[in-house]
Amino acid sequence: RFDFCHVLLSKNAALPWMILVPQTEVTDLLALTEDLRTAAMREAALLADFIKNRLSYPKINFAAIGNVVPQLHLHVIGRKPDDPCWPAPVWGNLTESREYPAQRVAEIRELLVRYCSLKVESS
Amino acid sequence: RFDFCHVLLSKNAALPWMILVPQTEVTDLLALTEDLRTAAMREAALLADFIKNRLSYPKINFAAIGNVVPQLHLHVIGRKPDDPCWPAPVWGNLTESREYPAQRVAEIRELLVRYCSLKVESS
Repeated sequence: RFDFCHVLLSKNAALPWMILVPQTEVTDLLALTEDLRTAAMREAALLADFIKNRLSYPKINFAAIGNVVPQLHLHVIGRKPDDPCWPAPVWGNLTESREYPAQRVAEIRELLVRYCSLKVESS
Repeated sequence: RFDFCHVLLSKNAALPWMILVPQTEVTDLLALTEDLRTAAMREAALLADFIKNRLSYPKINFAAIGNVVPQLHLHVIGRKPDDPCWPAPVWGNLTESREYPAQRVAEIRELLVRYCSLKVESS
């Protein structure tokens, strides 16, 4: 976790799809106070840098949707021209599903913790 | 226009779908400097308030995708449980298309300019 947000990794290994969960009861990103919004965006930017530089995806898609799950959460997704649903946005369009080998999850976790100086919580 | 972003209104009147275009050559929201990102998010938050309070949509979907159009642009979309594609995200899922009557565009423009103290450019 970052200071303000928890970090989740989507189960679908087809793309590096990460989700930040800010510790707040506000349900819309744009309804946060400016300070909290800036903190969330700073953490999203660190995650985006990680996805670009360590996972080698040149483009980031970012979204706060939350029509189904009310807890505020931010999608940070690595994209590239040969990914499984380029150039469509992933929501409703990503039909390919792949499982992460357990070792790859551990590897990403390790890389991410170091790259972003994350705090580690027992999972 | 705001100080940093131009404001566009989607042609599709099925939902209040607005697009902010920051005046920058950076193509990813999360790759902007923190100052510019904060400025863009502040303007997006004003637009979100307008959509909630003046157009009466309780939920905002926000995204920076840009896989096709490289110029950075931010989607700010009003959503509600009886809208034409709730709860799905609009991208790839909004099949309904409605035209704005010209008068409604002028009305929204007028309301928005006043609500957000926008600068007016000839269109």
